[in-house]
Amino acid sequence: MEMEELREELIETIQAHYERRELSEIKLVLNELNPADIAEVLEDFPNQRLLFFRLLSKENAAETFVELDPDTQETLLHGITDTELREVLDEIYIDDAVDIIEEMPATMVKRILKNTDSETRRSINALLKYPEDSAGSIMTPEYVDLKKGMTVEDAFKRIRRTGVDKETIYTCYVTDDSRHLLGVTTVKELLLHEYDDIIEEFMETNVIYVNTLDDQELAAQQLSKYDFLALPVVDMEERLVGIITVDDALDVIQEENTEDIQKMNAMLPTEKTYLKTTVFETWKSRFPWLLLLMVSATFTGSIITGFEEKLATLTILTAFIPMLMDTGGNSGGQASVTIIRAMSLGEVAFKDYFRVVWKEVRVGLVCGLSLAAVNFVKIWLVDRLLFHNSEITLIIDVAICLTLVVEIVFAKFIGCSLPMLAKRVGFDPAVMSSPFITTIVDAVALLLFFGISSAVIPQLH
Amino acid sequence: MEMEELREELIETIQAHYERRELSEIKLVLNELNPADIAEVLEDFPNQRLLFFRLLSKENAAETFVELDPDTQETLLHGITDTELREVLDEIYIDDAVDIIEEMPATMVKRILKNTDSETRRSINALLKYPEDSAGSIMTPEYVDLKKGMTVEDAFKRIRRTGVDKETIYTCYVTDDSRHLLGVTTVKELLLHEYDDIIEEFMETNVIYVNTLDDQELAAQQLSKYDFLALPVVDMEERLVGIITVDDALDVIQEENTEDIQKMNAMLPTEKTYLKTTVFETWKSRFPWLLLLMVSATFTGSIITGFEEKLATLTILTAFIPMLMDTGGNSGGQASVTIIRAMSLGEVAFKDYFRVVWKEVRVGLVCGLSLAAVNFVKIWLVDRLLFHNSEITLIIDVAICLTLVVEIVFAKFIGCSLPMLAKRVGFDPAVMSSPFITTIVDAVALLLFFGISSAVIPQLH
Repeated sequence: MEMEELREELIETIQAHYERRELSEIKLVLNELNPADIAEVLEDFPNQRLLFFRLLSKENAAETFVELDPDTQETLLHGITDTELREVLDEIYIDDAVDIIEEMPATMVKRILKNTDSETRRSINALLKYPEDSAGSIMTPEYVDLKKGMTVEDAFKRIRRTGVDKETIYTCYVTDDSRHLLGVTTVKELLLHEYDDIIEEFMETNVIYVNTLDDQELAAQQLSKYDFLALPVVDMEERLVGIITVDDALDVIQEENTEDIQKMNAMLPTEKTYLKTTVFETWKSRFPWLLLLMVSATFTGSIITGFEEKLATLTILTAFIPMLMDTGGNSGGQASVTIIRAMSLGEVAFKDYFRVVWKEVRVGLVCGLSLAAVNFVKIWLVDRLLFHNSEITLIIDVAICLTLVVEIVFAKFIGCSLPMLAKRVGFDPAVMSSPFITTIVDAVALLLFFGISSAVIPQLH
Repeated sequence: MEMEELREELIETIQAHYERRELSEIKLVLNELNPADIAEVLEDFPNQRLLFFRLLSKENAAETFVELDPDTQETLLHGITDTELREVLDEIYIDDAVDIIEEMPATMVKRILKNTDSETRRSINALLKYPEDSAGSIMTPEYVDLKKGMTVEDAFKRIRRTGVDKETIYTCYVTDDSRHLLGVTTVKELLLHEYDDIIEEFMETNVIYVNTLDDQELAAQQLSKYDFLALPVVDMEERLVGIITVDDALDVIQEENTEDIQKMNAMLPTEKTYLKTTVFETWKSRFPWLLLLMVSATFTGSIITGFEEKLATLTILTAFIPMLMDTGGNSGGQASVTIIRAMSLGEVAFKDYFRVVWKEVRVGLVCGLSLAAVNFVKIWLVDRLLFHNSEITLIIDVAICLTLVVEIVFAKFIGCSLPMLAKRVGFDPAVMSSPFITTIVDAVALLLFFGISSAVIPQLH
């Protein structure tokens, strides 16, 4: 809350200055802020965006531009001159330029590329060619490279000379003349060694890297696993072509989490933030799964239709359908979500399939038995004795509770199996989640309920 | 896949060396690896853990120890001598020591504290006092502090002298004599300035920090928002007491995401990884919600009971119950999950409530109308004409489709409202998710269905 109050206060201050046309005051206030906060202010003043943007120092302007929403970036790009654009482009890192370009219409891309020097343009074009969501698409070619024969002093000279344009200088890569990775060291290591020590003598030679075509999620996981600040990316010939920094890995992790959560809940992933997504875009992401699940649920309906005659002779059974369907769906959903998450965190792989199934079946049995016990007593005490529902017999109570146990075990089994099998054959496991599992379990729960009831309840024979 | 193959190959190599008792070979192989990978090897050789651990260099031993599961840490602690323990404790950072201690039984905690020097012990005890999930509980007191009058050369001297024990040296904090934060600078800045420049002249004075009692999630969000490598933590008197590094922020983000996903799917959060959790622990995290939702679903059942007589006169209606319930539940789930995620990413706050509701109601209307249209045609063509189900009349078709539209709008409304209201009154919004919303929407869907049917279908009058 405190945070939000501070922000509102800031907005009011700027508004007041603006109303009194005190632009030099606004300039002072804005340039004091962190670029991420300046970006928020610009988003809050849609009509003054360009004016405020022009009050920023060169460095702040560039860093703020990177933080803005693509829509705001586009509006600003329409307003600023080529000179201003060049100043922004000179300051920003190449991976950020690529991110911006990917969201712009073709004419704007042309204008951006026209205003970069030829070397940067070449780098940008190379990065644009990598497939979406690949390590190559999020890397930056701006890293510090050293040679193995350098002394610590040489290294610092090189960093001082070239470091200003590098996204991170703290991890330094040692390469040979054809850019093959020989080793890696850090500024911390360099600082803790003597000036005349040779890099080769203390560099880490077991270098962990990813390939340009590896998934960006893998890159982020590696960075997180090894607690690195940057991860090197190599091409097919194992030559160093770029690095991925930890702040980009963080963004990837949040993005992938959001995507997983959307898929797990029957939505197609959307890239924009919630309030920026239009009603139609939101509809597009939600309708297909709703439709598919609605159609599937009509099959469940036809199972009921097939049993209608018997249900008519013992209508009380209908009252238990929602409970059986919901509990089965929730049980299966729990299992599937747990497994999907464990797989995406790398805790579980396909080789663990039988261990997972064995565990889920036992969990299912314990959950089933405990819920059935509660239910058995509840049906007898509440429905039968309290509400005098004479239709309920002991054997009906047993049939319901038996269905519960079997369906929960089945739900846990199918809930953990489908995501693992989906991943095995190359599908995204996240879509094999609650809503999908629920639809299957619903149908199975009804078949079990009607099957078991028909078998054990004498009235239905 | 490639990764897993590499790991299996490594395991086989070590296994082969072990069978031939080639411990010096194993020592070579292990010490070449990154500590995170050594930890995985130790987990894979439960019986040789202590033996292998003793083959590690002092530095690797300490770094590997930090990466191990608490269970493995405890086993190793039982095996190693006090001297070995002291060597490990000397090398690791204080926040990691605190993490380890938090998972150990009391006797082991005593032994650990006995083997640390008194200053470290004091720091550890101070950190242990911060509430779980607070910024204080994940910070480390080992940071680089500088004085504003220092030159760049002084700063580098200080970093070289004290840096080896600091978790990160790249962000340096400028404090006054009573440890109040005056500014912040980075090693990159230092490297790009002349040796005789004074820090005060170029340090950043707009320092972003959190308080020890702030939520760890807020700290992680700030780090991610500003792309920092470390975030300072101050106490109630605004004195600098520690820092949170980006690798810890990454862990917090993954942990919080897992927790949200568990809560969103009707589970109590568990801390251990999936395969380490026992059947009983898994049951404990899943049973309470299943029970609660099962009991709630019986109310839905009693709605059906209350309508049983009318259902008996027009049994075909029962066949549409699963479709109506599932579609309502899925629609509400989509809305709630989207809002919960948007709130946890900071994209939506309570002040946006009416904007959100207005958007969800419109999305609900579009989803409802489009699904109803499909459904209307499907019921007529498939159920009525193809399957000759003469019970279905035009008015029944209308009643079903009307229910669909109204329930979806309601589901979207309740789906976005409950999480926002929950957060407003201080509850965790993540539990107001699909399973909970589904249960409410189920009941409402049935009431709507029966209400609308009774009103418009002549047979039910």
